[in-house]
Amino acid sequence: MGFDAIEVITTKRDGGELSTAHIDWVVAAYTRGEVADEQMSALLMAILLNGMNRREIADWTQAMIRSGERMDWSALDRPTADKHSTGGVGDKITLPLAPLVAACGAYIPQLSGRGLGHTGGTLDKLESIPGWRASLSNAEMLHVIRTAGAVVCAAGSGLAPADKKLYALRDVTGTVESIPLIASSIMSKKIAEGTGSLVLDVKVGSGAFMKTVENARELAETMVALGADAGVRTVALLTAMDRPLGKAVGNALEVAEAVEVLAGGGPSDVVELTVRLAREMLEAAGVPDARDPEEALKDGSAMDAWRRMISAQGGDPDAVLPRAAEFVEVTAPESGVLATLDALKVGVAAWRLGAGRARKEDPVSAGAGITLHAKPGDLVRSGMPLMTLHADETSRFARALQALEGAFEIRPSSGSGLLPLIIDRVTA
Amino acid sequence: MGFDAIEVITTKRDGGELSTAHIDWVVAAYTRGEVADEQMSALLMAILLNGMNRREIADWTQAMIRSGERMDWSALDRPTADKHSTGGVGDKITLPLAPLVAACGAYIPQLSGRGLGHTGGTLDKLESIPGWRASLSNAEMLHVIRTAGAVVCAAGSGLAPADKKLYALRDVTGTVESIPLIASSIMSKKIAEGTGSLVLDVKVGSGAFMKTVENARELAETMVALGADAGVRTVALLTAMDRPLGKAVGNALEVAEAVEVLAGGGPSDVVELTVRLAREMLEAAGVPDARDPEEALKDGSAMDAWRRMISAQGGDPDAVLPRAAEFVEVTAPESGVLATLDALKVGVAAWRLGAGRARKEDPVSAGAGITLHAKPGDLVRSGMPLMTLHADETSRFARALQALEGAFEIRPSSGSGLLPLIIDRVTA
Repeated sequence: MGFDAIEVITTKRDGGELSTAHIDWVVAAYTRGEVADEQMSALLMAILLNGMNRREIADWTQAMIRSGERMDWSALDRPTADKHSTGGVGDKITLPLAPLVAACGAYIPQLSGRGLGHTGGTLDKLESIPGWRASLSNAEMLHVIRTAGAVVCAAGSGLAPADKKLYALRDVTGTVESIPLIASSIMSKKIAEGTGSLVLDVKVGSGAFMKTVENARELAETMVALGADAGVRTVALLTAMDRPLGKAVGNALEVAEAVEVLAGGGPSDVVELTVRLAREMLEAAGVPDARDPEEALKDGSAMDAWRRMISAQGGDPDAVLPRAAEFVEVTAPESGVLATLDALKVGVAAWRLGAGRARKEDPVSAGAGITLHAKPGDLVRSGMPLMTLHADETSRFARALQALEGAFEIRPSSGSGLLPLIIDRVTA
Repeated sequence: MGFDAIEVITTKRDGGELSTAHIDWVVAAYTRGEVADEQMSALLMAILLNGMNRREIADWTQAMIRSGERMDWSALDRPTADKHSTGGVGDKITLPLAPLVAACGAYIPQLSGRGLGHTGGTLDKLESIPGWRASLSNAEMLHVIRTAGAVVCAAGSGLAPADKKLYALRDVTGTVESIPLIASSIMSKKIAEGTGSLVLDVKVGSGAFMKTVENARELAETMVALGADAGVRTVALLTAMDRPLGKAVGNALEVAEAVEVLAGGGPSDVVELTVRLAREMLEAAGVPDARDPEEALKDGSAMDAWRRMISAQGGDPDAVLPRAAEFVEVTAPESGVLATLDALKVGVAAWRLGAGRARKEDPVSAGAGITLHAKPGDLVRSGMPLMTLHADETSRFARALQALEGAFEIRPSSGSGLLPLIIDRVTA
């Protein structure tokens, strides 16, 4: 098909619909380097502003999948399931969830990413465990899955290379915030990863990419449809990200909280969401005689799966986690009910403390982050610690404290406008 | 000012107004190579789709002017005037107009371009005169102006280099068709060129960039306002480009027609538009005791200025012009009135005959083109020649004839919907 980049760009620029042939050509030609970055970024901006319909989004997703290899787990003797979160502050759910669902009877082949900006990345969190390796060959992945039932590792470069190249371009050209492009980016990787079922956790609120329930619902519906079209049983939950999830924000701090959950404790919101997502995954995967997730947390079988999973990737599950050298406390300026605790501000503060990175090549601190001592709805007394900030250098505290200005409100009585933890469920 | 390209891109993407500081920074940083092509093309697409207001367009234009040198003709002893046409088929008006206005009392420092696509370029036309040189130093320009009163030459690379770089980028990214970007591109070059007054010939119709009177008026109003803001007395005419201008389309063919006009003859539409534009230029320039253009055509003084102008740039005004080796005729299939003659189709046919180029680096044929034997409104008889196609190789005729399919209509009686030659006049 001999198309011309300008023909494709001007079609979308002028509000037209891109044909399947247009999309197949432009994604493949861009991946091969025949369509230039400056042409693709003009097309991406036209897509961002003029949209794509469901058929175009499905074609765009399929074209990205075809740009690389597609994994296949059909030789395994249990159904596969995966979860993807659109990212939030304190969102360590993958850590307890993957071994929990494995303990209940599914296989979890989960390819994860690193964090950028104020949202943390699952691989960054796991790398705070001494010895743990994110990069595995396909053979190693299979070995970890067979050993532990779950593997969480970095996606190899062979999976949806078009998406990798496009994502890097979107990142520097102001073309990230497009629901068709976000949906196709996420789903191309998840479909190429070869999972049989997928549960999407679409976060809503200040700390999430989607600030409103309407936008989150549109993204969820788009992704669920893409999954269904590709033969992956897909369900989405819309969940709250107006406040942080759990009480720990930061890499090693979140691993510690995940281990608490696996030990049968942990903050109630993390436990509730982990169990709900586990049930959704088991149902979507269609595991016969699945064990009950609450039971698997109580009887230690989820913790056993975690220990096997960490060990199989070189990590020491008994190692002492890194801690930051310095800390400061933020205390309540008055007594009352903690009415709000803004997820974005807490996320930015944790990022500035060293838990996140500004550029892909930056390192992250394992120990840096924030421990929350109160959550919205809790009674607080003037002078009591609300949160502890952890950093490797004291020089980081000033800008982190700046980010926290206006991050919380204390009111005389309860009754805030917080989102329910689980807002809605979206199915095909 | 330390801005970030993404901040500028997302401001315009989200429908906001770019500040003067944003625009100054992004144009300068792009010219220096600090803002990447893929970032600028995303911004250009956002501008194309979300527009710019008058203040933003004025700032964008000024930023492009400041990217390079600005010429200054204030040491000359007569007012300066220039004309710019947005481009059409058979539009050779600059050729007779520049020496004509010089003969009437103004100085004409005109920087021109080459053709791309179906519209011809003034420099390509003049280069069909043996010996004539388009590239002059500033000192040579001054010498030609003092000798002939007018100079038509190529713009040096020092004038609005930001516009050159941006134009090349727009050309490959589907971002040419934006009135704010077109207006600022034209006006940055014309203002940097240093003319004291400017008459814009904004073409309307199939063979022009602006297909409708509404779009042409918006472009004209935008450019007139930009000129006024920059202290250049600027007037615009909206003129017809639904049919070709004159009877010659092609480089040497158009030079020959221009010489006819300078000799007191030539097609009536070319004469009418040349004289009208000359009067507008003399008025805008404020030439005291300006001579009458019709008189200057009759008494040979415009022809004298032409001969001096061509000679001063190395050309031989008496040389025989190149002719194409091959020709074919298109005859009228029936008798009646030639009701329409589509400018775009004639332009594309002339381009395919070799008169134009598809890429900047392509050569053009001096002799190729089309001679029209009838113009809309003329009575034609079945079998009489309507036009002659000229080319250097017979192999070119088939595709040129294809382009002419449906190019004209012959009707029993007159009364077509042709645009008036001069549609409107736009002033500040």
